Amino acid sequence: MWTNNHLTKLLGIKYPIIQAGMAGGATTPELVAAVSNAGGLGTLGAGYLTPEAIREAIHRIRQLTNRPFAVNLMVVEHAEGDALQIENMKNVLKGFEDDLGEPLTFNHMNTDPQPFDEQLNVVIEEKVPMFSFTFGIPGRESIERLKANGTIIMGTATTVRESIALEAAGVDVIVAQGSEAGGHRGTFLVTNDKAMVGAMALVPQMVDRVHIPVIASGGIMDGRGIVASLVLGASGVQMGTAFLTCDESGIHSIYKEAILHASDDQTVVTRAFSGKAARGIENKFIRVMQAYESGILPYPIQNALTNPLRNAAKKLNDPEFMSLWAGQAASLSKKVSASILVEDLVQDVEKVLDSFFG
Amino acid sequence: MWTNNHLTKLLGIKYPIIQAGMAGGATTPELVAAVSNAGGLGTLGAGYLTPEAIREAIHRIRQLTNRPFAVNLMVVEHAEGDALQIENMKNVLKGFEDDLGEPLTFNHMNTDPQPFDEQLNVVIEEKVPMFSFTFGIPGRESIERLKANGTIIMGTATTVRESIALEAAGVDVIVAQGSEAGGHRGTFLVTNDKAMVGAMALVPQMVDRVHIPVIASGGIMDGRGIVASLVLGASGVQMGTAFLTCDESGIHSIYKEAILHASDDQTVVTRAFSGKAARGIENKFIRVMQAYESGILPYPIQNALTNPLRNAAKKLNDPEFMSLWAGQAASLSKKVSASILVEDLVQDVEKVLDSFFG
Repeated sequence: MWTNNHLTKLLGIKYPIIQAGMAGGATTPELVAAVSNAGGLGTLGAGYLTPEAIREAIHRIRQLTNRPFAVNLMVVEHAEGDALQIENMKNVLKGFEDDLGEPLTFNHMNTDPQPFDEQLNVVIEEKVPMFSFTFGIPGRESIERLKANGTIIMGTATTVRESIALEAAGVDVIVAQGSEAGGHRGTFLVTNDKAMVGAMALVPQMVDRVHIPVIASGGIMDGRGIVASLVLGASGVQMGTAFLTCDESGIHSIYKEAILHASDDQTVVTRAFSGKAARGIENKFIRVMQAYESGILPYPIQNALTNPLRNAAKKLNDPEFMSLWAGQAASLSKKVSASILVEDLVQDVEKVLDSFFG
Repeated sequence: MWTNNHLTKLLGIKYPIIQAGMAGGATTPELVAAVSNAGGLGTLGAGYLTPEAIREAIHRIRQLTNRPFAVNLMVVEHAEGDALQIENMKNVLKGFEDDLGEPLTFNHMNTDPQPFDEQLNVVIEEKVPMFSFTFGIPGRESIERLKANGTIIMGTATTVRESIALEAAGVDVIVAQGSEAGGHRGTFLVTNDKAMVGAMALVPQMVDRVHIPVIASGGIMDGRGIVASLVLGASGVQMGTAFLTCDESGIHSIYKEAILHASDDQTVVTRAFSGKAARGIENKFIRVMQAYESGILPYPIQNALTNPLRNAAKKLNDPEFMSLWAGQAASLSKKVSASILVEDLVQDVEKVLDSFFG
């Protein structure tokens, strides 16, 4: 039975389907709760949220479901940006003001990331059932506090080497992030060009080397992708793009439309929006910024700098300047409620199993 | 029954396992025949061979097997290189003479590709059972002559758009080349950055859009990869890297060792060796050439220019200057005969099917 494995028992969920913890407003408490109520595992993408906002969202999720859910954070260090380089990037961005029809102002810009320790404190105080993270490995003390609290810990690896490091650090579950995945790359041990490993290659090599459950992610959109992942040795799947177009997802309607109409040869990996490599649908901003690649600041400084531009684009309904994060199989997305999507996925898995072995 | 489908019937083979037509000496007649004799489909990678050498290899294959096999060619145009740029690249390459311990000479260098039409004439005259190609689409007349001859035609697509173009041109089967694949990218309709689609995303989107059999490729090394590919909707698999380390493969023993010891985060896509994007194990040549990226000439000129360097590296047994083409799951490769490999794969498929559904 595909639903009855180590992972579903460990997490206390019905189906080994995890909704990815995408930061940036997609993972509303309504989305998280809908996925968990449908038998999957919803995840709050809390990376950009203040500690107070995380607590509020957790409370809201608990009003909406009594099932397990996860909170995802980014293991990000403070970055120091060169003042001249920051001024130069502001000037580059101001070059888009004509497109956006309004001046971009960078007043009171906070280039610091949300404080990870304070965010994590909320996760621990609220006794969140599952904690997932990207971009690195939290310190030993953090891992121990989470474990003492009974929280299941899931780290993100883009290479086998990263999965081995995560297992050694004591995490319970690993997400194998294939190169197909939309949004930010979780890579933390090698340069990005060597960490773009497709799920077909990544998953079997990883399950051969670690002794904890591996969750496949990247380009998984339907029953075919779920069954293929399980066949490759994964204990479950994490899906991001598939949930972005759900009714409960908090992203801009123009962004949803872009995903629904994307083709497989439209996404690229760019550092232009945030300073960290991320996969999204190519638009004018990404294309123009290729000429300024060497001037892009590290995360989270670049992210803060492009915030006014992204906000202006949202007001204007202009997809050419939004960060349209999406995976390489976005064309398989649907406009449905999250509970229907999970139900459809489960039926589709059964259909694939039947048709393939019937 | 996984062995009994449209593809195996079309090709008259026992197992839907195709050995990729890798150019450059890997696909000896002995390898091609061993794969076909074992029930798969062997392919002669004939892209770099003269018409006479192709004919000779086909005759040798037919001495070794009476089963179907394929010949693979590259649809390459003549490229014109800027004389100054060629001189500059020669000087860059001469900078490696200290590493190689011998002077590099570029006398009598032929920068023209092997003449495709003459190569194809041999394929047609010899009534080869299957013809596969990469890098584009042969002209209408070529397709018609092959069809009139009863040859099954298989084209390579790296995006859905490319697969639709191939179907429209009249090919019988499409290879979906995932971004995991080693060696040259077959991309011909978009820039390479948008055509690095992982098999997990590429295969289901492609099978939804074309009406002819799709063969999955890229990172497929064992029963897990084969079954996952079939689950995603593929009618079979094409495997390259897995056959490179076979006894019958004609590559340098140092290159075989490099594949056997590769990890998933060691391969990169580079134009440094040939002028066309290809995935291989990163070495000193690739690293150093990153600084000269803008000076790299188009295929096949760059390929001709680096030929003396690659030959010197082979004499020296120096993997740092060989083109070590390999896919992202090279670590799953084994040192066996091709017939044992095909037998092992078939048993492994049965094992995966049993364990997953037993």
